[in-house]
Amino acid sequence: MSDYQNSESRNRENKAGENRIEGRNAVLEAFRSGKTVDRLYMLDGSREGAMQTIRKEATKHGTPVKYVTRQRLDQMSETGRHQGVIAEIAAYSYGEMEDLFARAEERGEDPFFILLDGIEDPHNLGAIIRTANLAGAHGVIIPKDRAVGMTATVAKASAGAINYTPVVKVTNLVRTMEKLAQKGLWFVCADMDGTPMTKLNLKGPIGLVIGAEGSGVSRLVREKCDMVASIPMKGEIDSLNASVAMGVLSYEIVRQRSGE
Amino acid sequence: MSDYQNSESRNRENKAGENRIEGRNAVLEAFRSGKTVDRLYMLDGSREGAMQTIRKEATKHGTPVKYVTRQRLDQMSETGRHQGVIAEIAAYSYGEMEDLFARAEERGEDPFFILLDGIEDPHNLGAIIRTANLAGAHGVIIPKDRAVGMTATVAKASAGAINYTPVVKVTNLVRTMEKLAQKGLWFVCADMDGTPMTKLNLKGPIGLVIGAEGSGVSRLVREKCDMVASIPMKGEIDSLNASVAMGVLSYEIVRQRSGE
Repeated sequence: MSDYQNSESRNRENKAGENRIEGRNAVLEAFRSGKTVDRLYMLDGSREGAMQTIRKEATKHGTPVKYVTRQRLDQMSETGRHQGVIAEIAAYSYGEMEDLFARAEERGEDPFFILLDGIEDPHNLGAIIRTANLAGAHGVIIPKDRAVGMTATVAKASAGAINYTPVVKVTNLVRTMEKLAQKGLWFVCADMDGTPMTKLNLKGPIGLVIGAEGSGVSRLVREKCDMVASIPMKGEIDSLNASVAMGVLSYEIVRQRSGE
Repeated sequence: MSDYQNSESRNRENKAGENRIEGRNAVLEAFRSGKTVDRLYMLDGSREGAMQTIRKEATKHGTPVKYVTRQRLDQMSETGRHQGVIAEIAAYSYGEMEDLFARAEERGEDPFFILLDGIEDPHNLGAIIRTANLAGAHGVIIPKDRAVGMTATVAKASAGAINYTPVVKVTNLVRTMEKLAQKGLWFVCADMDGTPMTKLNLKGPIGLVIGAEGSGVSRLVREKCDMVASIPMKGEIDSLNASVAMGVLSYEIVRQRSGE
């Protein structure tokens, strides 16, 4: 664990609200995935169905509920969209590389990991973890530097996926890729001058590398990639949103793996 | 035009900052696509390369530039990420249905339209217009009600795509679908209980219908769809982000159209 994080970045993330989950779906998912919710803040007087369901989960898990005003929730909220409920949970605990391999092995699948080279937008990070979960990737690897941590915004944008899909934080992405290559992984990154994604063989143990918005994959990381895939670009502008590009490439991998 | 919008909603959008574009790429794209920039607000003293390029465009187009403090830009900013430049442009003008057909005809392609059934998140709307542009869709159709307008946040998230890809606003999405069906379009929407997307025939004139986050495609709209496509879901959570789902489905259409 200590290999993948340092105390400085953890402190920064905690201040950013790492230990709060906001919004009805995200809170329900936290309960259902077995996360320990320390305390629940709910809008006083709300009788909607979704709120009743959350209350039942709280009772079932013995979670104390505090009923508060909308103003209080607004003050506490980091995302600005709490939908009447905020949960305090134990701080996010990063996964370890072994968790990712274990998840692949449990399912009897070749490893399929997502590596993020400097994603800075928490909405994008959350959407990427969400897509990773649904596309059947076994985990997400992020670098310690030049990247967002696991804040409440990330948790909400992930729609609960951070409770299932492990996220591993590494000190040096290039060195991590070298180690994973020794374990049999091939790496594919996306770039406009690559080979059209549908022409590549993306089966087998694979690491999909997604670069930062704007600057793309850094040179050293790109040099470690075995394949460069391009997504067809038929318009006037430059590039897809990072989380959309990740989704399109992930589902091309899903399609090829399913033998179509 | 009057058929597709009402003055009430236009006024609301103008207040929301419809006539401002923020951020370096978005402003550059506005110039390059031939949009009329009425005035430019730039951070005083900034000498970075991208800012010089924007200044040159302003000179070329005779656009007055006002140099202001960071505080002033922060006050003006809707997105909170102006990157030192905000442009005032003529209010967004929606396209007409004929523009979409004209764009398809110019390119010698079967129509490929995106229909949004109640997308409320401006980041998602922007990302969808961005992906529509790059996947070669000829335009985006949004309903007048239950949807966001073309605000500065949408413009920025679209990365300039709103300057190229027409967005049409319609009073009644179901009636619009009936009219488009008469012109030969087939409609596909996404839902978990649909046919796997790779098993459907998505060639020919097509309208891709994307539902709201959470509630999905509404019943009446779904009844007008000829096909229901499912994206493989291999994880524990419920659904993809709307803009990611739209990207995955759009590129499945691109793949099938290219004959692979």
